[in-house]
Amino acid sequence: MKQVLEYLAANEERFIRELCEYVSFPSVSAQPQHRGDVEACAKWVVAHCQQIGLEAQLCPTNGNPIVLARTPRDPAKQRPHYLVYGHYDVQPAEPFELWKSPPFEPRIQGRSLFGRGASDNKGQNFAHLKAVEAYLKTGTPLPCDLTFVIEGEEEVGCENLPPFLKSHREELRCDGVVISDTGILDLQHPALTYALRGIAAVEVTLHGPSRDLHSGLYGGSVDNPAMALSQMLASLRDKNGRVAIPGFYEDVVKLTAYERKEMARLPFKESAYRKSLGVSALFGEKGFTPNEQRAARPTVEINGLTSGYQGEGSKTIVPSWARAKLTFRLVPNQKPEKILKLVAKHLRKVCPPSVRIEVSQGHGGEPYLVSPRSEAAQAALRALGQAFGHAPVLLREGGSIPIVNDFKKILGVDTLLVGLALPDDNLHSPNEKFSLDAFAAGMRLGAHLWRELGA
Amino acid sequence: MKQVLEYLAANEERFIRELCEYVSFPSVSAQPQHRGDVEACAKWVVAHCQQIGLEAQLCPTNGNPIVLARTPRDPAKQRPHYLVYGHYDVQPAEPFELWKSPPFEPRIQGRSLFGRGASDNKGQNFAHLKAVEAYLKTGTPLPCDLTFVIEGEEEVGCENLPPFLKSHREELRCDGVVISDTGILDLQHPALTYALRGIAAVEVTLHGPSRDLHSGLYGGSVDNPAMALSQMLASLRDKNGRVAIPGFYEDVVKLTAYERKEMARLPFKESAYRKSLGVSALFGEKGFTPNEQRAARPTVEINGLTSGYQGEGSKTIVPSWARAKLTFRLVPNQKPEKILKLVAKHLRKVCPPSVRIEVSQGHGGEPYLVSPRSEAAQAALRALGQAFGHAPVLLREGGSIPIVNDFKKILGVDTLLVGLALPDDNLHSPNEKFSLDAFAAGMRLGAHLWRELGA
Repeated sequence: MKQVLEYLAANEERFIRELCEYVSFPSVSAQPQHRGDVEACAKWVVAHCQQIGLEAQLCPTNGNPIVLARTPRDPAKQRPHYLVYGHYDVQPAEPFELWKSPPFEPRIQGRSLFGRGASDNKGQNFAHLKAVEAYLKTGTPLPCDLTFVIEGEEEVGCENLPPFLKSHREELRCDGVVISDTGILDLQHPALTYALRGIAAVEVTLHGPSRDLHSGLYGGSVDNPAMALSQMLASLRDKNGRVAIPGFYEDVVKLTAYERKEMARLPFKESAYRKSLGVSALFGEKGFTPNEQRAARPTVEINGLTSGYQGEGSKTIVPSWARAKLTFRLVPNQKPEKILKLVAKHLRKVCPPSVRIEVSQGHGGEPYLVSPRSEAAQAALRALGQAFGHAPVLLREGGSIPIVNDFKKILGVDTLLVGLALPDDNLHSPNEKFSLDAFAAGMRLGAHLWRELGA
Repeated sequence: MKQVLEYLAANEERFIRELCEYVSFPSVSAQPQHRGDVEACAKWVVAHCQQIGLEAQLCPTNGNPIVLARTPRDPAKQRPHYLVYGHYDVQPAEPFELWKSPPFEPRIQGRSLFGRGASDNKGQNFAHLKAVEAYLKTGTPLPCDLTFVIEGEEEVGCENLPPFLKSHREELRCDGVVISDTGILDLQHPALTYALRGIAAVEVTLHGPSRDLHSGLYGGSVDNPAMALSQMLASLRDKNGRVAIPGFYEDVVKLTAYERKEMARLPFKESAYRKSLGVSALFGEKGFTPNEQRAARPTVEINGLTSGYQGEGSKTIVPSWARAKLTFRLVPNQKPEKILKLVAKHLRKVCPPSVRIEVSQGHGGEPYLVSPRSEAAQAALRALGQAFGHAPVLLREGGSIPIVNDFKKILGVDTLLVGLALPDDNLHSPNEKFSLDAFAAGMRLGAHLWRELGA
């Protein structure tokens, strides 16, 4: 182990140069003009994997190719097999004028590497490759067999990953997945993200009169769809911040005392949080802390409202229709399909006969939960502590990472989310950067993780 | 009187030709390219007034000129003086492609005259001019002195009329105003419109986080301004359709039994009304008929709702702000200023501390009520019965006609609203038309009205 860590420390400068080369590819999956750059980046990753001693190949898909790379196997040894997922595609860099240096000309300043994709996700998956390189180049036996799956469509919806997982199911059979594509609060609080929220989207439209009506001539004798909608939406949340749809909380797994204690350990200052959001008071479900509310409790959100006249001044109409876009964030074990049914049923029930309701269901994503008490989770926590030199924390994250559910469904395994992104990494924004300290810690994490998981 | 009516009947064909000439001017006040047409139309009206024996002149204003025309005065006779108001400007004709014949090339089909402005308001004010012509050309003594004020900015807000009324206050001192610019249900129900609703406009904006937030990362811990707004708006109307703002009904004058009986006489089929609006059920304040609800009761209407994402699909955000445009229709004796204060107070009271509220007051217009039992009203009702050959009805109208309040405030007199527009006249819409039967009845109305009012 000592050799591995020494190798990582001794070669850090070269690793940073290599990462700069990786970041210099404008591998923007959303923009057709970068198709060639995406392809070139994928080929560079394959070549790099081969160079460090992995068996690597480019797997074509209906979209961008997937890099598949594996550590050399020893048929004599039965070792745990882990899959390491990452993505080489990046978000668009626009607006360019807000970048302090060109997004695809990586620049080092202090202990930060600036460039689009530096943190999301090139720096993070590269750290794992470097950890494996250290094992292979120092001749240290790897405690696990590893397979890297580095895809090129994460920023555009991962459409071709599930079919790939299905068609490579045998080869990818494994004991678990490791992903560094989440965040940590700071370098003193390395984290295992063990739960994600799911989502269910609904659009509700109320149809009133067949055309916008003169509110003077008709107003009062016919319902106003915007008012009917407001009253229906108001019924979705009670004054304690709870979703007021019958049955909504039925399948919610209660937070354990252990989880709540762990969450309470996270550094959090309400005043600073309020200030960062620009609000003078927070609001959330009674009985839970803000961190619990935004990561571990389900919610209803109105994402958009549209009705009638929206321009300057006023237009005295009874609008013909009104629409709301809603999403519900879900927690284990809520099922999007069931929630969508409950929501539609409730909306139809509270809809007055004076308007016609149209409910259209949008996308759904399941919540994710892996026990933080599992052996793998405990191994990851030990590795995090060793790599960062600080006691790790347990995180639940409020957003969704659909691929985690794909791994579970298709390969039947859990995922360890051990992220390296810092809050100020400007993910998806101008001046994205990756902390070189996080990079170094991430490489050490790889080194320790395979030992802990292989033990 | 017989002579006057015979003259009107005998010359109807010529009158229709003249009205066609009047309608052929594209006197669209809203469109700068028609400034010349507006001016030409005004001059045509002045010339026509002079031709029929009135003393007429064009009065310049800061906008379009006002036609001022008076019947010859006889200093020896003390006669009541009435002001007849009308407007020679018209709405834009767009969309042209929906017109069956060019909007400014009047076309007769059956007993209808098609053309922009035929009903609103050229045909209606021309009927009054023709009635006076009949008196003057037959040498029948006019029972009243009359002054015509025919303006050119009614469709763009009448901005220059109040200053004109003020600067001509002495000359315009009168016993009342007569306007034919409202509607009737059909030719069998001539109507005196004796009350109008007022209006008060408010825009309320709720500010939440300083930017749209990722609903996964933050949702649940910070209020959603669209939800807060929905709940606030929901509090504005109760389940009985009443405005739920404390004090809102304080100054409302109760409908009298006489008024309710008169309103009940109006032909009204709920099923046909529902069908015309395209709704399967009506909704309005409990305890009142649809006609009362839309004309004689105050309301709250949401005219527009805006928040967050409004495009296709979904965007998972907590929107930074949410806005509603509201108008309140008022009835006698509600005061817009007082209502605006009550509304703002209520909104601030129900606004949670988790969002910042901004209330901006829009335009206000006072309601209008003239006693249907007054001598002038009774005279108008008699004249309507004689002119149409059917018993007249009393109407309250749900919209506002601000000039009526200007006449009251500046000249201190009431207005008799005796409209000639039919429900299918397509006011402000393509294929506007004026019923030639309503035209004929309108001319007879003028003939009878001056006799009744002068008696």
